[in-house]
Amino acid sequence: MTAPVSGSDRELVLTRLIAAPRRSLYRCWTEPELLKRWFTPPPYRTVRAELDLRPGGSNLIVMQGPDGTEFPNRGIYLEIVENERLVFTDAYVSAWEPSEKPFMTVIITFADEAGGTRYTALVRHWSAADREAHEKMGFHEGWGIAADQLAALAATL
Amino acid sequence: MTAPVSGSDRELVLTRLIAAPRRSLYRCWTEPELLKRWFTPPPYRTVRAELDLRPGGSNLIVMQGPDGTEFPNRGIYLEIVENERLVFTDAYVSAWEPSEKPFMTVIITFADEAGGTRYTALVRHWSAADREAHEKMGFHEGWGIAADQLAALAATL
Repeated sequence: MTAPVSGSDRELVLTRLIAAPRRSLYRCWTEPELLKRWFTPPPYRTVRAELDLRPGGSNLIVMQGPDGTEFPNRGIYLEIVENERLVFTDAYVSAWEPSEKPFMTVIITFADEAGGTRYTALVRHWSAADREAHEKMGFHEGWGIAADQLAALAATL
Repeated sequence: MTAPVSGSDRELVLTRLIAAPRRSLYRCWTEPELLKRWFTPPPYRTVRAELDLRPGGSNLIVMQGPDGTEFPNRGIYLEIVENERLVFTDAYVSAWEPSEKPFMTVIITFADEAGGTRYTALVRHWSAADREAHEKMGFHEGWGIAADQLAALAATL
């Protein structure tokens, strides 16, 4: 973990050095069957992932709680650079239909570094209040566990 | 004018049949020196237009009131299809820096129709309250006057 990169009070950041090539991490983020294996901290599971991987393409990721309750997350991709960078937001549910509530924009980057890949998830919110709410929802723990699972899966590819 | 296309209570729509080719209307929207000539209902003027015309590119349009007060409008382009379609939003001030307040997404389309070009500005808001505020700010009159000015300029190109 590092501190937020720009000092912005609207950002949350998670970064890790992962012992796997950029390509493997990118695959884990973009192939539905791989994403379902690492994305959700247990006892939650990711039961559905539809990823229309192009700028303006929709993504739908459905998480399921231990009692069977489903939590759908809808968003769209804004930018895609293969093996390097993914940007998506929940401000739209499709191109260009606004969502009920624009909450966050996620910028995932994969960069070569000695020992593997520097993996960074930069999450920008539209308000400091939303950033704080996200942190209190367990951002660091949740995204941290998911990053561990991502690293473990990527190492097997 | 037509009614909002989807019945959504978050949309405002302006549409016109303009006696000019799609190409001319697209130029008026994308060339700064042309845009400055039609974009603003008098006595306001558009005094600056910086248009980085690519998905994720920023746009800055500065309007000036009769007393010299400047009103900067910042946004980014989300989608660009030459001579056909422009999508931009004020939800970001650059790629991908959230703005202070995501207010609207604008979808401009140019379609061939007998007599010229069907010009449509579809403006989607994140809430019905914002849509209503926009309407009360004079959306129909302001965008209507601008569309008249756009049609007049495009006819000269």
